[in-house]
Amino acid sequence: MTKNLLLTIAYDGSCFHGWQKQPGQRTVQGYLEETFSRLFKTEVLLSGTSRTDAGVHALGQRATLKTDIAVPTERMAMVLNNALCSREKNSFNIAPVRILEVREMPEEFHARFDAKGKEYVYRIRDGGPGEGAVFERNYIYHVKEKLDVEAMDRAASYLVGKKDFKSFEASGDNPRQTTVREIYSAHVERTEDGIIEFRVKGDGFLYNMVRIMTGTLVEAGRGALEPERIIDITAACDRTRAGHTAPPFGLYLAEVFY
Amino acid sequence: MTKNLLLTIAYDGSCFHGWQKQPGQRTVQGYLEETFSRLFKTEVLLSGTSRTDAGVHALGQRATLKTDIAVPTERMAMVLNNALCSREKNSFNIAPVRILEVREMPEEFHARFDAKGKEYVYRIRDGGPGEGAVFERNYIYHVKEKLDVEAMDRAASYLVGKKDFKSFEASGDNPRQTTVREIYSAHVERTEDGIIEFRVKGDGFLYNMVRIMTGTLVEAGRGALEPERIIDITAACDRTRAGHTAPPFGLYLAEVFY
Repeated sequence: MTKNLLLTIAYDGSCFHGWQKQPGQRTVQGYLEETFSRLFKTEVLLSGTSRTDAGVHALGQRATLKTDIAVPTERMAMVLNNALCSREKNSFNIAPVRILEVREMPEEFHARFDAKGKEYVYRIRDGGPGEGAVFERNYIYHVKEKLDVEAMDRAASYLVGKKDFKSFEASGDNPRQTTVREIYSAHVERTEDGIIEFRVKGDGFLYNMVRIMTGTLVEAGRGALEPERIIDITAACDRTRAGHTAPPFGLYLAEVFY
Repeated sequence: MTKNLLLTIAYDGSCFHGWQKQPGQRTVQGYLEETFSRLFKTEVLLSGTSRTDAGVHALGQRATLKTDIAVPTERMAMVLNNALCSREKNSFNIAPVRILEVREMPEEFHARFDAKGKEYVYRIRDGGPGEGAVFERNYIYHVKEKLDVEAMDRAASYLVGKKDFKSFEASGDNPRQTTVREIYSAHVERTEDGIIEFRVKGDGFLYNMVRIMTGTLVEAGRGALEPERIIDITAACDRTRAGHTAPPFGLYLAEVFY
């Protein structure tokens, strides 16, 4: 009997050219499908929730896998992770992708179309690269100046609500019907280890939306932009009014809600 | 006038085939000499303290650079770091190597021969790969079992002193006159973020010595070896008596003392 399995997946985006399968590129989807197809000795196809860009990480990407392999669902994560780890050259090594959870879903469930919303986290270290910078360079956006976290958090609060977010969409030919999205929550805070985290939850996100929001919040943190300016920037529906696009490597797809 | 500059260097070893220059391999020494030679438009050679292996990191490697370039010493670290960062493709990117400090030394000072000792740190996460494992896989040794840190620390205490450490040297043809070394201190503790750290300070280290010590301490932490057994293992002067060689990616050259 074919099962429809929902996988929760973490990956280090610095090892991949994004999620989506592309010929001649090492992508997360390609890496997983290849490993699982070899393991099950039959073609395995995944259907993911979000096409993360090259360098973007995931703490909780989701994808479905339809299979009639006779492995009990509760053992599946272990079986898949063992297959992933044994791809690595060194027996000590952990794979750059890890299956955190496997759940059985109804046949008609779809990882992307049934998603109610997503949460992203963006990580920033301010005040110039510290001593640990070489180890963090693929995981955190380093900003030289000290940033005003309170101002950033205030700026973030103006992003909340159902609005046209065209100002926060990468310009270009984007495949979408509307640029209206609902942001449920948006907060900036400094964590215990001194990192600045921007957490944003919404029903959907335009192309590069979180990275452009982050770049705009960084401008607010630098004092180059009054937090209240987010209101006109949004109303303008003009990409050139918002801040820079923050780099991919600080961005994490944190959670997908159903 | 030629200055003899002592550089303190941090690097992410996962990006390199070790410190020492080798034809056709990306090594830290090669990467630095190439970048600095291009910057100064003249051949720059570095003389480093320790040949770290592929995958091994540095928090404080040292190397000397003789130069007659007219850059004030206090600005040199910034100049060198700017050159390193501009090698990276993305303008946001930080280089995998960073110069932490530059100091002017007497003409006859030698980074390796004048070193009085070194400190290494080895990082372990126990109890199976956690949720963040994909991001730590090049920086921490993941051990499935929960380890007894107190037993590991007790085992480490038996490593302290001036002894023949042949049991903790990788077998093979090793270029050294004696296998006697002095270990000044050796401690194992669990840090606030739950990582187990082994810190060891000594006047010198044999090939793979810290990694073999770590593998042996892990056996003690698993309960597979009584801490006191370190005494006979050392006395045996026999590599086969010690534990496994822990992987390179958990190891950090922390400090060099003069």
